[in-house]
This record gives sequence, structure tokens and C-alpha cells, in this order.
Amino acid sequence: MKVTKIAVVGATGMVGRTFLKVLEEQNFPNCEYTLFASAKSAGLKLPFMGAEYEVKELTEASFDEGFDIALFSAGASTSKVFAPIAASKGCTVIDNSSQWRMDPEVPLVVPEVNPQDIAKSKGIIANPNCSTIQAVVALKPLYDKYGIERIVYSTYQAVSGAGVKGWDDLENGAKAYVAEEPFEPKKFPHPIFSNCIPHIDVFLENGYTKEEEKMINETRKILHDDSLRVTATTVRVPVFNGHSESINVELKEPFELSDIYALYNDFPGIVVQDDPSTDLYPLACSASGHDEVFVGRIRRDFSVENGLNLWVVADNIRKGAASNAVQIARYILEHKE
Amino acid sequence: MKVTKIAVVGATGMVGRTFLKVLEEQNFPNCEYTLFASAKSAGLKLPFMGAEYEVKELTEASFDEGFDIALFSAGASTSKVFAPIAASKGCTVIDNSSQWRMDPEVPLVVPEVNPQDIAKSKGIIANPNCSTIQAVVALKPLYDKYGIERIVYSTYQAVSGAGVKGWDDLENGAKAYVAEEPFEPKKFPHPIFSNCIPHIDVFLENGYTKEEEKMINETRKILHDDSLRVTATTVRVPVFNGHSESINVELKEPFELSDIYALYNDFPGIVVQDDPSTDLYPLACSASGHDEVFVGRIRRDFSVENGLNLWVVADNIRKGAASNAVQIARYILEHKE
Repeated sequence: MKVTKIAVVGATGMVGRTFLKVLEEQNFPNCEYTLFASAKSAGLKLPFMGAEYEVKELTEASFDEGFDIALFSAGASTSKVFAPIAASKGCTVIDNSSQWRMDPEVPLVVPEVNPQDIAKSKGIIANPNCSTIQAVVALKPLYDKYGIERIVYSTYQAVSGAGVKGWDDLENGAKAYVAEEPFEPKKFPHPIFSNCIPHIDVFLENGYTKEEEKMINETRKILHDDSLRVTATTVRVPVFNGHSESINVELKEPFELSDIYALYNDFPGIVVQDDPSTDLYPLACSASGHDEVFVGRIRRDFSVENGLNLWVVADNIRKGAASNAVQIARYILEHKE
Repeated sequence: MKVTKIAVVGATGMVGRTFLKVLEEQNFPNCEYTLFASAKSAGLKLPFMGAEYEVKELTEASFDEGFDIALFSAGASTSKVFAPIAASKGCTVIDNSSQWRMDPEVPLVVPEVNPQDIAKSKGIIANPNCSTIQAVVALKPLYDKYGIERIVYSTYQAVSGAGVKGWDDLENGAKAYVAEEPFEPKKFPHPIFSNCIPHIDVFLENGYTKEEEKMINETRKILHDDSLRVTATTVRVPVFNGHSESINVELKEPFELSDIYALYNDFPGIVVQDDPSTDLYPLACSASGHDEVFVGRIRRDFSVENGLNLWVVADNIRKGAASNAVQIARYILEHKE
């Protein structure tokens, strides 16, 4: 049996390290791994699969080795340059950056939602934005059964989504608070400890942030519905890991709440947590470390016909990034001729 | 000139102490104050107006002294018993609990929104829920100029709204995290440090929380529109003070964004903070300690006709409770014959 060669690009970052963790858990048979990062991190040794892997510098020649799959999480500018090089050499790139997501030639994939798009890849497959992944998993069964008229997203996003520096801003902010010392944020434009910042990624001309635009456009692309009506307000909250989302959705057809529960209980990758009598509902603290999307606070919205309120939580570094990419890799491995 | 006698009931709690702070700032002429609390806190001495005030035990006889105004923040059960007693003795009660808010005989008042309702009082005036107060201030000018078709609230509520014990859960959770020690929450059903809890007040039969129901019903009552379409998801976040709200609103009539800014700049009690170029938008950390409602992230919602997204932040203990009640008292004092 031929060995599958897998490259991990950006192996030393927060998502990169989680790629390694998830790959260890999955332990795909007959795979060989090479870890890449920028010159700055090259030479670093990372424990992986019971051994020590030396991180290599990413260069144009890196893909001459003949990789089958490359998992990229090294930022949009690195993906812009190196993903086409890898693809041109026969490697399938699963890219976690925003660089290729809206390219009409590039499938944008959440395996529970649109696995069939993987086959359309011309060498690059994009991993969606973290907030979008968990949202579309929760919306897909509703979309298929009832149709969706309109979506209003309000997010509660963890600092891990902003990488190690985002994490440090909350960690150091908490320490400074406890020590009664002043604190200057390094990553976020304002202190994130004890604060909510309605500003993720850069601002656009129309007053939206790019994160909000991503949620709107990527939801449409993944659900294959360019005219889907979506709006979003995306907010950073002082939570280390695990994005929460308040999703208000108008369905096209009437529904029974009991059918919604049944749909969710049958849908892969979703765990329903919804029992007020035991204070059970999705929480960042309990979703963190898991690959499922947790759905709860499922209630009829009485303010509109066929309205529904949901509270959706997932680990934004796992399901929102690394695990989703590795799931795509798994799908490719399982569907190889 | 006759002295106005003012009672502060529940003077030792978090809102009660803020009553005292706001009363000191306002320094109404010719007023005399008496502080009340439960037997447990009676005898405590609080610094107030440059002197020391001994807190008296609240009893049925307390109102025999002939108070003009009583500011209550001692919980719904205390208000249920003592507000009618005070009112029966000619005192106007401004009650911060939820006890009387939905009573058709009791006006529910935000002075920037429905001051005219104060005159309808038969002795008790209710102070609305904290999340509702800041929302209706932001909605009122829109309601008057364009009409409102539907409102979708998602809240980001600070722990101070749950009183001293709520504050302590976040404070002690942060300390335990920094000390790498385990932590058991005392007030909330789950840890609030590094977590978002979509559960405020108790759960109702229909899956909503009472906090969500309050926002829906109180918005309708304050805007005098029983058929207004409103839905809400209310969430506790790890912020000490200052509630944030993502408000999605459909107006009845078309609007220009520039007119919305103009409306807000003219409306009392609102400060617009909306300049992406300088990372200016409402934040809990900057609203805390102020009486205004801060509005920003003002954007057209392209997913619906006449849709608008807002981000609204206020100090939930000041404008959301104490300052709003003292504003009502001020209105009464200024409109006395």
C-alpha cells in the first residue's frame, strides 16, 4: 500500500499545533508527515506521533517532495504564494486562511454540510471561517428540510481565534487585574478582559467588519445559495476558547419544535444540549476540546412566522479550524481510488 | 421651602449603594434622606452626603415618618409587601424590582422615553429591567420617526447585574485561574470566568428565560405598543460591569443612515460612538461609570427591507438601575406643584 505524504504548513501556530493533536488522535494508516513553518520557526522540534519532528522552512522547493495533502494554517499571504505552488505539484491543499475561500474555483467545505464539493477541487480546498463552520452545521438540516428565509447572527467569539497573541491579551489582562496592575493590550485594540469588543478583523467601507462579511458570504457559498439573506454582528468576548453564537433564523416552511430536535439528533457532528431543568445548554467551557457542534436554547421566535432561536457553541480551534481541515483530509483519504 | 423626605430602601446592596452615589452627584436641594435595609444590615453606617448615615431596619412603621419619595432596590418580595404600604401613606415609590413592572396600574418609566407616564402613577412607579432600559433609549427615536416592525435582541450582560455574588463569581474565578486553583461558582450555575452563560433569571415553560420575557414585555409596555414584535436571547458574559447588546431592528419606513446619526445626536441620554477609523465603538469598559446609553456599529442590515444593526452599551447599575430611578425622582421633584 502506497504511503500518503502529508505536509503541515504553519505547524508552530495555535491552529498548526492543533492540526498535530488532531492528526495524532485520528492516526490515519500509512501516512508520513512533514512539518513546515516560516524561517523564524524552522529548526524547532515538536513532539508528534511519539517522536520529535524538526520543523522545516517553507520554500518553493518544499513541495518537490511529492506531497499528497498539505494542511495550511500560516496566514493568507503565505497561502496566496504557496498553495498554488503545492497544487501545481499535484498536492491537494486544505487551506485554513481566508485567501481562497471566496474564489469561485475553490470549494469551501464543511464535511457535514457539503462534502460533495471536495470532488470539485482543482488542488485547493478552503476551510471556512471558524464562526461560519459551526453556524452552517447547525443550519444545514433546517435548510434542507424547511428552507431558510433569513439569518441574523450575533457572535460571542473566543480570543483563541486571534491566535497566541489574542490568548495572551486575555491571560495577561486577567493577571494584571488580579495583581491590581495596569495593562496595555498587545493584540486587540482595547482590553479584552472584562470587556466585549464588537470588532473582529478589519472594518470595511459599509461599516461591517470583514469577519461579519465572511460569515455572510461563506454561509451563502457553503449552502450554495447566493441570494440567502444573512446579517451578522461579530463580537470578541473574554473567553479563552470556544465560540458561542446567538442565531435567529426564519424558516421558509412551518415547523414543529419536536421535529427540530429529531433533525438535530440525527445529524452528524451535532450534539443537542437543551434541558433547562438541569441547566443544560451549550457552553464554551464544555465545548472546548471537542469536535462536535453543540446546539441548545432551541425556541420558537414568536415575533415572526416560522422563526427559531438557537444557541450554538463549538471549539473554534478544533471544529472551527483544525478538526474541520483534518475531516476534509480524512474524506479525501477515504475516497482515494 | 418644604423639605422633601426621601427613603432609600435596600441601601446596602449593589444598586442601593449606587443610589447613594448618584444622589450625592445630583445633590437635590432641600432633601432629607433615610436609609433602610433588612434587619440583617440594619445598624450599618454608610458614608453619604459628607456624613455617616445609620441604616434603619425596614418595617411596616417605617413609612409613618411621611416620606415623599422612596427608592426601592431590595428585591421583588420586599417590594411586594412594602411598596403598597409606602404608597398608601402618600409616598411615591420608585421600585427597581420586577414586582410591579407589568402591573397595568403601574407606569414603567425610562425618563428619555416615556416621562409622561410618571404622572399616571397611583403611588408606585417601576424602574425597568437593566437590559430593557438601554435598549428602549436606543430604539425610541427610531420608533417615533420610522415605526418599528420587529426587534431581535442578543445581549452580553455583565455580572454586576447579578449583584455582589455575581461579581464575586467572576472575581474569584479570575483569581483561581491565575493561581491555577479549582473554582466552584456560588451564584451562577456554571463558571462565568472565560465562559458565556445563555441563562439569566429562571426558565419558563416555553423555553425562554424570564430575562428574555422581561425584555420582550417591557419593551412593548414602555413603547406603548402591545403588538410590537420582539424576540430576545439574553446571555451572561465575563464582564464586571456594563451590558452590551446586539440589536437588529426592522423599521416600518425607509431611512437614510445619515438621518439615524442625526436622530441619535439630538436625542437626550444617547452618545454616538461610531468611528471605525479610530476603533471607536461602544465598550463596556468605557460606558461603566456613566449615565448615557452609547450607540455604535450603526449599519444597514441588507438582509431585510429597512433593516438596521446597532451595538448598544450602558452601565447596567447606573443607567440600567440606580441612575434611571434617580432620574425619575428628579422628574418628580421638578414637576411638583
